[in-house]
Amino acid sequence: MRPSGRTPSELRSVRITPNCNKYAEGSCLIEMGDTKVICTASADFRIPSWMTESGKGWVTAEYGMLPRATGTRNDREAAKGKQSGRTQEIQRLIGRSLRAAVDLSKLGPMTLKIDCDVIQADGGTRCASITGAYVALALAVAKLQKEGRFEENPLSAQVAALSVGIYNGTPVCDLDYIEDSHCGTDMNVVMTNQGGFVELQGTAEGRVFTRQELNQLLDLAENGFSQLFEYQRSAIEEGKAANE
Amino acid sequence: MRPSGRTPSELRSVRITPNCNKYAEGSCLIEMGDTKVICTASADFRIPSWMTESGKGWVTAEYGMLPRATGTRNDREAAKGKQSGRTQEIQRLIGRSLRAAVDLSKLGPMTLKIDCDVIQADGGTRCASITGAYVALALAVAKLQKEGRFEENPLSAQVAALSVGIYNGTPVCDLDYIEDSHCGTDMNVVMTNQGGFVELQGTAEGRVFTRQELNQLLDLAENGFSQLFEYQRSAIEEGKAANE
Amino acid sequence: MRPSGRTPSELRSVRITPNCNKYAEGSCLIEMGDTKVICTASADFRIPSWMTESGKGWVTAEYGMLPRATGTRNDREAAKGKQSGRTQEIQRLIGRSLRAAVDLSKLGPMTLKIDCDVIQADGGTRCASITGAYVALALAVAKLQKEGRFEENPLSAQVAALSVGIYNGTPVCDLDYIEDSHCGTDMNVVMTNQGGFVELQGTAEGRVFTRQELNQLLDLAENGFSQLFEYQRSAIEEGKAANE
Amino acid sequence: MRPSGRTPSELRSVRITPNCNKYAEGSCLIEMGDTKVICTASADFRIPSWMTESGKGWVTAEYGMLPRATGTRNDREAAKGKQSGRTQEIQRLIGRSLRAAVDLSKLGPMTLKIDCDVIQADGGTRCASITGAYVALALAVAKLQKEGRFEENPLSAQVAALSVGIYNGTPVCDLDYIEDSHCGTDMNVVMTNQGGFVELQGTAEGRVFTRQELNQLLDLAENGFSQLFEYQRSAIEEGKAANE
Amino acid sequence: MRPSGRTPSELRSVRITPNCNKYAEGSCLIEMGDTKVICTASADFRIPSWMTESGKGWVTAEYGMLPRATGTRNDREAAKGKQSGRTQEIQRLIGRSLRAAVDLSKLGPMTLKIDCDVIQADGGTRCASITGAYVALALAVAKLQKEGRFEENPLSAQVAALSVGIYNGTPVCDLDYIEDSHCGTDMNVVMTNQGGFVELQGTAEGRVFTRQELNQLLDLAENGFSQLFEYQRSAIEEGKAANE
Amino acid sequence: MRPSGRTPSELRSVRITPNCNKYAEGSCLIEMGDTKVICTASADFRIPSWMTESGKGWVTAEYGMLPRATGTRNDREAAKGKQSGRTQEIQRLIGRSLRAAVDLSKLGPMTLKIDCDVIQADGGTRCASITGAYVALALAVAKLQKEGRFEENPLSAQVAALSVGIYNGTPVCDLDYIEDSHCGTDMNVVMTNQGGFVELQGTAEGRVFTRQELNQLLDLAENGFSQLFEYQRSAIEEGKAANE
Repeated sequence: MRPSGRTPSELRSVRITPNCNKYAEGSCLIEMGDTKVICTASADFRIPSWMTESGKGWVTAEYGMLPRATGTRNDREAAKGKQSGRTQEIQRLIGRSLRAAVDLSKLGPMTLKIDCDVIQADGGTRCASITGAYVALALAVAKLQKEGRFEENPLSAQVAALSVGIYNGTPVCDLDYIEDSHCGTDMNVVMTNQGGFVELQGTAEGRVFTRQELNQLLDLAENGFSQLFEYQRSAIEEGKAANE
Repeated sequence: MRPSGRTPSELRSVRITPNCNKYAEGSCLIEMGDTKVICTASADFRIPSWMTESGKGWVTAEYGMLPRATGTRNDREAAKGKQSGRTQEIQRLIGRSLRAAVDLSKLGPMTLKIDCDVIQADGGTRCASITGAYVALALAVAKLQKEGRFEENPLSAQVAALSVGIYNGTPVCDLDYIEDSHCGTDMNVVMTNQGGFVELQGTAEGRVFTRQELNQLLDLAENGFSQLFEYQRSAIEEGKAANE
Repeated sequence: MRPSGRTPSELRSVRITPNCNKYAEGSCLIEMGDTKVICTASADFRIPSWMTESGKGWVTAEYGMLPRATGTRNDREAAKGKQSGRTQEIQRLIGRSLRAAVDLSKLGPMTLKIDCDVIQADGGTRCASITGAYVALALAVAKLQKEGRFEENPLSAQVAALSVGIYNGTPVCDLDYIEDSHCGTDMNVVMTNQGGFVELQGTAEGRVFTRQELNQLLDLAENGFSQLFEYQRSAIEEGKAANE
Repeated sequence: MRPSGRTPSELRSVRITPNCNKYAEGSCLIEMGDTKVICTASADFRIPSWMTESGKGWVTAEYGMLPRATGTRNDREAAKGKQSGRTQEIQRLIGRSLRAAVDLSKLGPMTLKIDCDVIQADGGTRCASITGAYVALALAVAKLQKEGRFEENPLSAQVAALSVGIYNGTPVCDLDYIEDSHCGTDMNVVMTNQGGFVELQGTAEGRVFTRQELNQLLDLAENGFSQLFEYQRSAIEEGKAANE
Repeated sequence: MRPSGRTPSELRSVRITPNCNKYAEGSCLIEMGDTKVICTASADFRIPSWMTESGKGWVTAEYGMLPRATGTRNDREAAKGKQSGRTQEIQRLIGRSLRAAVDLSKLGPMTLKIDCDVIQADGGTRCASITGAYVALALAVAKLQKEGRFEENPLSAQVAALSVGIYNGTPVCDLDYIEDSHCGTDMNVVMTNQGGFVELQGTAEGRVFTRQELNQLLDLAENGFSQLFEYQRSAIEEGKAANE
Repeated sequence: MRPSGRTPSELRSVRITPNCNKYAEGSCLIEMGDTKVICTASADFRIPSWMTESGKGWVTAEYGMLPRATGTRNDREAAKGKQSGRTQEIQRLIGRSLRAAVDLSKLGPMTLKIDCDVIQADGGTRCASITGAYVALALAVAKLQKEGRFEENPLSAQVAALSVGIYNGTPVCDLDYIEDSHCGTDMNVVMTNQGGFVELQGTAEGRVFTRQELNQLLDLAENGFSQLFEYQRSAIEEGKAANE
């Protein structure tokens, strides 16, 4: 049995509140159970110097966590003077995932910077960040398109992420913190709504996992994605409507 | 006339939502108009090494701003690898202000760390941080006292902060961003509910200010404080009741 | 009684030696009792990138302290790899204070960089730095004007700083280290010779201060400023004469 | 066709030279084609402070690349003052992979630090690092066991890593740099010789990958691992024999 | 007697393997006994900004040591976030030494960056680095000259380095680690094949040295240099031949 | 002819003012012409952790330069966040030089920290720093000995430093900035008053130097040292007398 009483394939309650920030080109607050992340998308009409001659735009992401987002307070990265390896790994993952949903050549000379800041963490913050980041990105793209910044819509797909793992020998999806910290195997899956994998990051924690378990985990993930894509679409529609 | 249509002595709408974080010993979300700050108080049962022999506790604060809290995105301090002078100045001010409300010898060997993270900024973030930080601190003290951590209540007063300034020649209180950026003089006032000043930081921006203007600004501030203290008391009561 | 035997309104012995550095456009050594600060003003014929289009110049300041300027040696900031919050706060204060004395649009495309380096500290180093920095600045402006760098004199006023505080219940001015470290309230006042405040930074240390005490402190400060402005004028004249 | 003329399942020529460093407890030079990595294992008879009470030991890894290991010179990380996100991500992966092969409770109070330094890079440096790091680790464990440091052998399995990817639409294994930089999907697989996965990191580059492609890639990887484990065993035997 | 059984004037076995790196414009592995250094020379067709108007090129060097190059593991400088004073001192010395062998005005707008990375250290790493760096530099210059990058050969001399010292009261040359760590005086000598000194860095360790001892040490050094220059010439010829 | 009109063996005017700092255990201001350095010696009754078991004390030095000590302002190292390679090289040299004058086993568990801060630079700052540092050290030792901190005087010799070089083909001593920047060879010599060398750092700048030139430079240096030792003795006597 899962500590939360959920069935193995049951997501936590998902809530995506669009336009939570009045300045950003796009934004949302995503809540997966008690995990809460503010995602903003900011347009910067410059591109990194190494892209100058490509004619393409760029999408990049940064990730942070408030010091008391977790059960015990973590030192503030700005005060320590550097981002941890974990933070860098996560923000690189978010950036790569989002770029899989964007045709950079249609962006034009522009960088879209996505900030994912975890207000409260209860497991699965990197997956919630990706799922919310896509909503912020889509709202920003919609706003910039209304302003005539693009000739064609640069979004080529919807992208979302979900964690799965083996808890007490049973494959389960959308792990919360208690499950995550006792999990034999932990896998983050990033998919598009067109059915392919963008990223697959599986880690054995404590014991290795077999090919069969991998398949069970992927089955479970695919099932959850249809719900996530629906939550995203609904939040994007709501956010766009409010911006009319 | 003020851009917001407020009268000179009128505060923005104030909302303090206690217990916004499920882990922190005390927390609140404070909103002063469109300025929004998450304040958490975390107990750490260690004290700084230079205090080891004092028998006292310590209260300290850190301040941060999400990159897109403002109209144009600011680089993330964790990514830049250092906190700006402005950030350090503000968090030192918050810490000093809170310590004026606490009898450190009654805290015992404990550090209370207050984090003020600006989710959205529209002027007056340092004052909102202090006012909210006190609420988070008071809720944390209440919780720790219920756990029997103190013999006597270490809180000696309520502390809050308010900005005042001269906008278009008129002294006004609780400046929003538009006012702040066109302000001739800007003053942050920190007071206790017992009527004394804790901090007074006045800065001429563009032109110097006279003794008479100083007095007008302080009159205006004192008027606003009675409301702030009331908002704090009400949020603390609400937060305590929810924790029963 | 004050430890030094001074009356409440009595300044320490003040000595400002102009042209203490043979390279700087302007310089002085300021001594307020045993507090000694070397102030230099350096002209850099570039301006910060964010000012490029303003047509204005800029004035900025940096502050440092030799490791053994104090009773016990402090670690060298260059060796620690960062400037403390206190250092940054002070150098921002010095810069703001000086800019209140300069019409930046008359400077032209030039940055004046003021360095205040404390050789020996006995309280009041930030105030001595501001008072000395103005002298270095004025000598640099005089030299640059002789070279034909400005059409009009960019100095609009004289600026100086003085600390006041409540020591053993009595308001006193120009606190030395012993007074400062036992002081109930500590206030740094920056004024121009035209009678207005540039900065007012009052901090309760140990107990809050009242409106009445504030007024007593400001009365005391205003009295001391007339002497400081006179010391500055005399040093500037001496320095200019030596440069003929 | 692959640029190197290899068949899809063909590894590059593999050479593991044990004991390449005269000081380290264990070491090897691993060459996968033109990719060359020096791996050393160093015993430190201390453990991280957060493990003090666990009674367990620890295994950790660091990764670096000489500036001219690649076609164009990269800035030296020591000179830049920080390790890139990529470096941190890789060294965290190496550490996790090795810990899957070690029973930390049998290590006792000891940290084994593995350094993987890339002398020349031609694709697949993280996989070569893991495969070589295991050899260095095994040689160090053998040496320490001969010295009587452990009651039981702390190694529980052999661990190695291999990259696979889809090049020009064809799944291939052990990608070299040219393949890697034109690859549609890139996957790093870490396995033990007992048949389970330790890590699986698949990244779509340019286009997403399907469940079927994933299965093809894993089939290809499993085939290559049997050869890698044999190379490791042979090098470990050679290294141990030389240490008799 | 020397621990290695060498006579006072006897060098350790010297081996210089050219072209050890397939990407660098020039490279070698130099071994002086158990001291092993990889030296690469990389051409960067930019010059430092402060040289832009000089019309000259630049030669610079960086130095590093693998963490386990020594008997006990040293922390990785990239992980510590800064290069030690020792590292910086050595790389400045290498750069100055090489520039003594190059006519920068014949280089044209180009920076040659030499990297010396110590794979294994047994004393004399800075001298081995200089001697090997010259070989890498000469091979790079030969390659660039074949490409028509220079009108005239920018190399004006051969440069090499050798350590000498007083061990147990006897002047000896090419100190290994055991000798170095028990040495009364330690001197690094850099010379050209035209007979002059480029650098002379003598340090008394434990006891001062006399003018007479200095002369004995320099006699000893000069004798060793003729062998070093011969090793360099031979390696350069071998490396050039292989590049035909 | 030298720009200053001095003869080749003529020192600049030397002035050593003892006790220039009221807090330091020992201090002086040393002036060599227009080069001015404040030297302080601070006692810290702790020793570095790596010396804990040695029973010995330690002597170390730090070096800094005020930003406008030179003709054009240098960026402040504390603001840049790191000490340059030059600074580190110099402070390591000062430390080694002083330790040659101290019997560390007689110091007991104490670190003497010498700070050399260049107030104004006109060539030869590292040599002036060493010569002045010895005076500060000797005054600190005298003070600590009067307090009964040592059983025996830990000073074993007097140490000083002097620069020599070849200017326009002529060997000269005590180079000022103009000479230094046009110098063919530059050598810093550190000696004790017992006639031996502590450090010898010769650098060819522009052209190599011969054995004969080296001898001329050393002859010149030895001549100057007798004067320097006399200046030191006189300042130490004056300083001690003032401390009676």
